[in-house]
Amino acid sequence: MTFLELVKNRYSCRSYKDLPVEKDKIDRCLEAARLSPSACNAQPWEFIIIDDSQLRDSLAEKAAAGIYRFSRFICRAPVIIVVSADKGSFLSKAGSFVRSTDFYLLDIGIACEHLVLQATELGLGTCYIGWFDDKAVKKLLGIPGKRILPLLICMGYPDDTYKPKDPIRRRAVADRRKPLSETAFFNREYR
Amino acid sequence: MTFLELVKNRYSCRSYKDLPVEKDKIDRCLEAARLSPSACNAQPWEFIIIDDSQLRDSLAEKAAAGIYRFSRFICRAPVIIVVSADKGSFLSKAGSFVRSTDFYLLDIGIACEHLVLQATELGLGTCYIGWFDDKAVKKLLGIPGKRILPLLICMGYPDDTYKPKDPIRRRAVADRRKPLSETAFFNREYR
Repeated sequence: MTFLELVKNRYSCRSYKDLPVEKDKIDRCLEAARLSPSACNAQPWEFIIIDDSQLRDSLAEKAAAGIYRFSRFICRAPVIIVVSADKGSFLSKAGSFVRSTDFYLLDIGIACEHLVLQATELGLGTCYIGWFDDKAVKKLLGIPGKRILPLLICMGYPDDTYKPKDPIRRRAVADRRKPLSETAFFNREYR
Repeated sequence: MTFLELVKNRYSCRSYKDLPVEKDKIDRCLEAARLSPSACNAQPWEFIIIDDSQLRDSLAEKAAAGIYRFSRFICRAPVIIVVSADKGSFLSKAGSFVRSTDFYLLDIGIACEHLVLQATELGLGTCYIGWFDDKAVKKLLGIPGKRILPLLICMGYPDDTYKPKDPIRRRAVADRRKPLSETAFFNREYR
């Protein structure tokens, strides 16, 4: 599979088979994330893998309560990965301050996408969840208050019988994105 | 090449051959970035590709002046890609506000890594530059003030004769990262 095929195969999977994910596959996804580049090699990420069904149920219930109930579908994923971040090393924090850009979030995006693309190659479905109750998740898992939880990632074998109701989601990834003419410019053509 | 091999092949390339990069290869990298997922499908990215040697020289000179001169090596890259971001759609901005997380930066990290991994597959070297004078770059290219320039990406054919002086940079990517035992935890072992 070429890299472009891999990228085209990835999609936000919101329905999963009731099957566990093998530990060696999860480990391979974690290894792909581990090797990610980051500003000043700060590696500001931690991944907490919840595949114990009881703990997964508690997590899904707490994370997707109240205003976050739009994310309830996460309870159908056999694995939920809690992405935990710090703001990076002294150097990368200093750089973030001078440049007014939180480099640790760029780093987290890169590492999570390594994990997600590796999962795609292994035939696993994934979905990023940004809309969840991070305070409740921290409390449940005992994650220190100063850490930041930018994302959850759901993972499991896709339920192929599921068809999204939303017609936009049924379209291929390539058709759901702006054309390059709107987002890429060469040299002086930008002006 | 498996995805994990691709990830292992990527490194921060700081020396390039004096060769142009073919337009179709750049286009393929841009297509891989275009297909990236983003919060609420906001696609907050723009890529400005500078491969005109005169404009590249001006850009490198302005971007890596003064306190940013540590990044001077960018003048040796035949292509410099300016990554320009907005803060996302109304929905993703509202989510960022409630969740105190700038989702657009996660999105930019994901899209840039698609671009970089596609370049790696094509035999191209790349390097992320976070340390540069974004105001000077905006002025040179006429980029509106409200846009954010989180990163530059250098690109070109790697100069294989170059050996980094820094012994840390000579080590394989896998050896330069923390072991998984420090960054990945299963279920209750986190506590």
